[in-house]
Amino acid sequence: MTPDQFREHGRDVLDWIARYLDEVERYPVLSSLRPGEVRSRLPEHPPQQPEPFERIWSDFKQIILPGITHWQSPWFFGYFPCNRWPSSILGELLSAGLGVQGMLWLTSPACTELETHVLDWLVELLDLPRRFLSTGSGGGVIQDTASSATLCAVIAGRERATGLASRRQGCPPGLTAYASAQAHSSVVKAMALAGIGTDNLRLIEVDESYALRPDALRRSLEADRRAGRKPFCVVATIGTTSSMAFDPLRPVGEICREHGLWLHVDAAMAGSAAICPELRSFHDGLELADSYCFNPHKWLGVNFDCDCFYVADRESLIRAMSVTPEYLRNPASEAGEVFDYRDWQIPLGRRFRALKLWFVLRSEGAEGLRSLIRRHIALAAEFADWVSNDPAWELAAPVHLNLVCFRHRGGDAVNQRILEQVNASGRMFLTHTRLDDRWTLRLCIGGLTTQREHVTEAWRLLQEAARMQTVS
Amino acid sequence: MTPDQFREHGRDVLDWIARYLDEVERYPVLSSLRPGEVRSRLPEHPPQQPEPFERIWSDFKQIILPGITHWQSPWFFGYFPCNRWPSSILGELLSAGLGVQGMLWLTSPACTELETHVLDWLVELLDLPRRFLSTGSGGGVIQDTASSATLCAVIAGRERATGLASRRQGCPPGLTAYASAQAHSSVVKAMALAGIGTDNLRLIEVDESYALRPDALRRSLEADRRAGRKPFCVVATIGTTSSMAFDPLRPVGEICREHGLWLHVDAAMAGSAAICPELRSFHDGLELADSYCFNPHKWLGVNFDCDCFYVADRESLIRAMSVTPEYLRNPASEAGEVFDYRDWQIPLGRRFRALKLWFVLRSEGAEGLRSLIRRHIALAAEFADWVSNDPAWELAAPVHLNLVCFRHRGGDAVNQRILEQVNASGRMFLTHTRLDDRWTLRLCIGGLTTQREHVTEAWRLLQEAARMQTVS
Repeated sequence: MTPDQFREHGRDVLDWIARYLDEVERYPVLSSLRPGEVRSRLPEHPPQQPEPFERIWSDFKQIILPGITHWQSPWFFGYFPCNRWPSSILGELLSAGLGVQGMLWLTSPACTELETHVLDWLVELLDLPRRFLSTGSGGGVIQDTASSATLCAVIAGRERATGLASRRQGCPPGLTAYASAQAHSSVVKAMALAGIGTDNLRLIEVDESYALRPDALRRSLEADRRAGRKPFCVVATIGTTSSMAFDPLRPVGEICREHGLWLHVDAAMAGSAAICPELRSFHDGLELADSYCFNPHKWLGVNFDCDCFYVADRESLIRAMSVTPEYLRNPASEAGEVFDYRDWQIPLGRRFRALKLWFVLRSEGAEGLRSLIRRHIALAAEFADWVSNDPAWELAAPVHLNLVCFRHRGGDAVNQRILEQVNASGRMFLTHTRLDDRWTLRLCIGGLTTQREHVTEAWRLLQEAARMQTVS
Repeated sequence: MTPDQFREHGRDVLDWIARYLDEVERYPVLSSLRPGEVRSRLPEHPPQQPEPFERIWSDFKQIILPGITHWQSPWFFGYFPCNRWPSSILGELLSAGLGVQGMLWLTSPACTELETHVLDWLVELLDLPRRFLSTGSGGGVIQDTASSATLCAVIAGRERATGLASRRQGCPPGLTAYASAQAHSSVVKAMALAGIGTDNLRLIEVDESYALRPDALRRSLEADRRAGRKPFCVVATIGTTSSMAFDPLRPVGEICREHGLWLHVDAAMAGSAAICPELRSFHDGLELADSYCFNPHKWLGVNFDCDCFYVADRESLIRAMSVTPEYLRNPASEAGEVFDYRDWQIPLGRRFRALKLWFVLRSEGAEGLRSLIRRHIALAAEFADWVSNDPAWELAAPVHLNLVCFRHRGGDAVNQRILEQVNASGRMFLTHTRLDDRWTLRLCIGGLTTQREHVTEAWRLLQEAARMQTVS
C-alpha cells in the first residue's frame, strides 16, 4: 500500500467511522451470531498474494461487523462502559502512525515525558493526593488495565514486605492480603499470578452498602497476626463492579498505616468522577494509600486501553519490577535523570498511549468531561426513581454514580428471563450480578451519546419484558 | 468534536502520516532533546475548557515531534525493529473506531473468532506444529508483548508442576527453571513477578554461537533433582536479543519431555522468518514445546502491540489464569462453546488487535512478507561481509537472519565512542550489547523502507566514526 493508497483507503475508514459515530445506535447492540459463525465465513487458508484493500474492507463489513457487540451504542448499559471520544480515535491513529515503542526514555523522550506530565495533570484534575505527583517521590504511568495495575501493586507490596527477598528467593509462605468480598476478580487473579496464593487473600465481609467493614478487616488481620501470618497488603475498591460500592478509605488506610500494609486503591470505574469537585468525597483518606488506579478508558472516553496507575513511592515499584540487561543500558538511564516506564509495568515494550489521553483532555477540556459525568449520574438517579416507584421492582443496592442495581420482585428466574429477552431483542444491552445471593440486574449509564430518551426507552423495554415474563 | 469535525481533522492526521511514511527518513533518527525538555514546553496546568483541534495538532508538531525517536526510519538499526505497514495503521484506526472490548466471546464474537482464526492461519504460514491449532487442544492468542507471554507460560508451567496448588496456596519452594545465559531479561522478570524467585532460575552456559548447551542444561537440572529441587520449566530462545542465537530445540525438548518440564519457546524476533520455507530449520523440534511466541509487531509489520502466543494444551493455561465472578457469567461461556480470551492473559479487558493482523496478512500477502524478510537477511549478510573483509573490524557472533554483531578492533572505549558519535549525528541509530564481556555493536536491519543504500551509508558512517576515534 503506497502512501497515496493509504490516504485514499484511510479516508474510507475515517468516513465509515464518522458515520458509525452517528449510526451505531441503529445497530442491534448485542451480536446475535452463534459460536463459530464468524469463523465459518472466513477462508480456511491464509492469502499468499496481496489482496486489494477494497476486498478486505468489504469483508470487514460483511463478515466482521455482524459479529460486533456495539460497546459504543447509546443502548449499551452492560458491565462498565468503554468509551472513546473522536479525539481519542485520532490520538490512537497518530500513535500507530508514528509507530514509536517507548520502553525507555531514550526510545522517544516525548512518549515518556508527555505521559508523566499528563498523569500529573490528572492528579490536579481529580484532586488526588500530591504524593502521587512525579515531581515528588511518586508518579503515574499508563497501564493497559486495572487488572495489571493491581498485579503490579500486589507485587510491589510483596517486595516491600519482604525487603525484596521474594523476587530473589520466591514468595515466602504466610504473606496475606485483604480485600472486600465485593472486590474485583483481578485481586484474586493477582494473588494467584504473583505466587502468593488465593487462599492467602481474605475476602472481608461488607456492610449493607456492600462496602468493606473496617472492623471486620481489623479482626481478620489481627487474627492472622496472632496465627503467625504476615499481612502485607489491602486492596480497597472505590466503585465495585457489582454495585459501585465505596470502601471507606480513611479507616482502612489508618489500619494499613498502623500495621504497615501496602494499600492499593482500585477506582477503575469511579475514579474519573473525581474530576467533579462535588463528587470527590469517596476519595477521603486516599492520602493514606500507596498506590491508586483509575481507567480513563471507562469514563473519560479515552479509548481502551488506558489505565492510570499511581504510586506514592515510585522506587518501591521500580525495585520490584526492574531487570536491566546490557542491551537496554544507555547514558540517560544510567544517570538516573529519566523515567524508563518499562520498569513500572509487566511488559517491556509500550505504545505511545499518552497521545490519546492528551488529545482527549485538551479537546474535551475538564468541563466537557464533567458535564458528561454529571449527565450520566443524573440519568441514573432518575432511572433509580422509576424503579423505586414501581411496586413490581426494587433497588438492590444504594445507587452510586451511574450504576443502578435493581430487580423485579418476581424472583431470580424472572429477572434472568427479562435479561435474556431484552438483550436478545438487540434494542438494548445490560448485564447482571448477584447481590445477597439474589440475581440482580445492573444498568450502567455511561455511553458518550446516551441521553434521557435512551434511558426512558430502556425502562419501557424492561417493564414490557417483565410483563411478558410474569404473564406467561 | 462532531463527526464532521472528526472527518476533517482525521484527514489532516492521515495526510500527515502519509507524508511521514515518506519523509521519516529525513528526520534525525534519535531525538536530541535533553531530559525534561518536552515537559518544560507543556503547560503546567490542564485545560478547563475544550481547545480547538488545530491548537493541539500544532503543539504535536512543535513540542512532541522533536521528542520522537523515529523507529520507522530506514536509518533505525537499533534493538529489534517495531514496524507497521500502512494497512496495520488502518487496522488500528478501525479498532479504535469500533471501540470494542473483547474480554469475552459475548462482548464481540468477531473479536475473538477472527483472532483464533488468524492465529491458526499463522500456524500454517510458519509451519508451526499442528498441536498449536485451536481446532485441536491448543490455540493461539494475541498478547501485548513476549514478556507477558513468557510470564503466562512460566505461570502455566508452575501450575502444571504443582497440580494447581501454587495458585491457591502460593508458590512452594524449590521450583526451578532454566534458560540460557543469553535469554531475554523478561525470563528473569517472569521468575521475579510469579513469586518463584530469580535465584531459582538457572542461566545455562552457551556454546560459541551463544546458544544454550543441552549437556549443560542436563547437568544443571540433574544436580537440582539430586538436591531435592523441583525443575519445572525451560525457556528456550529462537533468536536471542543480544546476538540472534538459536537454542537447539530438539535436544532441549527431549530433555524437557524426559523430565516432565514445561518448554516455552521465545521466538519474539526470529519466529516471523519461518514464513519463508527455507528459513525454518531453527524450529526443528518445536513440536516438543508446550508454548511458543513470536511478535508480528517486530518483523511482520503489524504495529505494536501484537505478540502471538500459542499453547499446545489450552486448558493448562486457562486453569492457571481463570477467575470467574458472577458479573462475567453468560450462557455461551458456561456452555464451553467459546473461547474467552480474558482467561488466556493477565488483563481482563482487551482491544480488537486481530483486525490489524488480518489487514496485514491480506494486504501484504505471505509473499509480500517473505520478500521483506529475505531482503533484510540479504542486506545483513552483505554488511557482515564488509565487516569481515575490513581488517579494522570483526564479527562478534555468527550472523543469523538480520542481525550483525560486530566491533572495531580498537577495544571497548573505541566502540562505545563510535556508537555515541553515529547516534548523536542523527543520521542513523544502532545499539550495543556485551558478548564475551566485550562491548559489541548490534546492527539490526529490519525497517520496512530500509534498502541497500541505507545499509551502505550506515557502514560508511561507522567507518568514518572509527577513523575519527582512532585518529584522535
